[in-house]
Amino acid sequence: MRIGVIGTGAIGGYYGARLQCAGHELHYLIRSDYAHVVEHGLIIDSCAGDMRLPQVNAHAHMAHMPACDLLIIACKTTANAHIFPHIAPLLTDNGSVLLLQNGIGEEEHIRQYISHPLLSGLCFICAQKIQPGHIHHSDYGLMTIGHWLDDRSAAGTTDALSHLQHTLESAQLEVTVAEDLLQARWKKLLWNVPFNALSVLLDAHTDALLANPSCAELVRILMTEVQTIAAADNRILPDKMIDAMIHNTEKMVPYATSMKVDADQNRPLEIDSILGAPLAYAKQAKLSTPALASMYAQLHFLYGNSAQTHV
Amino acid sequence: MRIGVIGTGAIGGYYGARLQCAGHELHYLIRSDYAHVVEHGLIIDSCAGDMRLPQVNAHAHMAHMPACDLLIIACKTTANAHIFPHIAPLLTDNGSVLLLQNGIGEEEHIRQYISHPLLSGLCFICAQKIQPGHIHHSDYGLMTIGHWLDDRSAAGTTDALSHLQHTLESAQLEVTVAEDLLQARWKKLLWNVPFNALSVLLDAHTDALLANPSCAELVRILMTEVQTIAAADNRILPDKMIDAMIHNTEKMVPYATSMKVDADQNRPLEIDSILGAPLAYAKQAKLSTPALASMYAQLHFLYGNSAQTHV
Repeated sequence: MRIGVIGTGAIGGYYGARLQCAGHELHYLIRSDYAHVVEHGLIIDSCAGDMRLPQVNAHAHMAHMPACDLLIIACKTTANAHIFPHIAPLLTDNGSVLLLQNGIGEEEHIRQYISHPLLSGLCFICAQKIQPGHIHHSDYGLMTIGHWLDDRSAAGTTDALSHLQHTLESAQLEVTVAEDLLQARWKKLLWNVPFNALSVLLDAHTDALLANPSCAELVRILMTEVQTIAAADNRILPDKMIDAMIHNTEKMVPYATSMKVDADQNRPLEIDSILGAPLAYAKQAKLSTPALASMYAQLHFLYGNSAQTHV
Repeated sequence: MRIGVIGTGAIGGYYGARLQCAGHELHYLIRSDYAHVVEHGLIIDSCAGDMRLPQVNAHAHMAHMPACDLLIIACKTTANAHIFPHIAPLLTDNGSVLLLQNGIGEEEHIRQYISHPLLSGLCFICAQKIQPGHIHHSDYGLMTIGHWLDDRSAAGTTDALSHLQHTLESAQLEVTVAEDLLQARWKKLLWNVPFNALSVLLDAHTDALLANPSCAELVRILMTEVQTIAAADNRILPDKMIDAMIHNTEKMVPYATSMKVDADQNRPLEIDSILGAPLAYAKQAKLSTPALASMYAQLHFLYGNSAQTHV
């Protein structure tokens, strides 16, 4: 297969490299590290097995990329407005898209530009780009994939999804199929909303947040608000899911969230896709979510002017 | 009259000096600036008329102060736990207390230690201590005073209140009587909760907060939550009061709140009396106030360990 990767950061770089090592023809859109990667290729240090790719097909501009059978969108959502309008030419007639991004709402967004099968995934992985063309993957790696349907219903296991699962598993990747993609997205937001927001606003890791009783209570308030919004989208996140998520986070190694990593590195924050989109959904459903509104307003005040970027 | 002032910062220093200039015998409890004030006295630069008091009765310890006819408590609420247990000997049999503090709930607290008439006030003043023994009063100055009753009812205009009003007005101070002290306290909290919390959390002045649409919305959410708690305390703060307060704040000179001034000067923050006490009241009344809980949790996480101090 010919596979394109838009956004060669930790996510795009790691999963792209696995697919390239499995024998596929990979093409990477690479912005700031382009010259370095053309000269030195990609280096992936991984707990699941290191990879050295001295030669990769790097492209500095989308217009230079060939049409692909699979196009993986792995940039930050903050770049989508500059990316999505230009992806149609990068897909073959039978090509499909795999959207590997945080938050919610970007499937509707990309649908304005393509009608190809839209597969969408969530990555549970600890990986960071530590230098140009050099990615460090320290833990986890599971990808959950689902098939997006424009009526927001659960697609179940489709042929396109099974085919993608086979492709990923053949590249030594761990994959689970979400029969209901939105259920999986809301579940991930249950965690991402409180911990991304508070880790940035309070400059803290997960362990410190949960050790403070008032903050632990606020985490639960935020999760309950997300639960309420998900219910309005017909996705039930049971109370015991919240209990288990807090319990598991307490047992986790202290963890810097993706938004905190972005803030620490002065990169744009995914405020809109992780907090703004759920808040807009709540308003549309006439739900009151004051704690979510607090987090969004504070992040927007502090970081709102840097919310858009180019890849 | 013999008048004691506990906490000779901007508030205690300014109002004490006015009363001393009116001919009363003033005694000041002064902690960090004691030696300086003994030598140099107090200097008050004031938009309402400068005052120079080269000689003042300064005391470094409460045990050294004489019994007074009026004891003004003007320390930060963060010091109350160290002050209140020691005030009874500082009052004559016919003496009364004037509590000049922010927030809510401290009247019940002080009642554990004295049974004298308890008058309580709110100061609407821009004043800061800019050097040891040197206070700068730049704007406003109105004091609203009310008579505390242990059954939380409105006391109306009592003899003790009228007498205090006369004493203050004779010292060229602007005073209004609140027939219902708790109504006045909840009204001030309507402003203090959002602007104190957000000015510290976002390191911003009132104008910047209101210029951001998401933050302006959050200010209104917080005010509405305070309004709901006040209603449970049988105090009605009408919607048009919120509208007017936001409108007036937009027109104000950009303003650093008292909590922001405290944060900037590494002093303890009045988190408990301004946010914690209303939140506790909400919980007791089984009200949901998630935005207030968000503000409290974040301030508590960032500043909670420095919430108590000595005067």
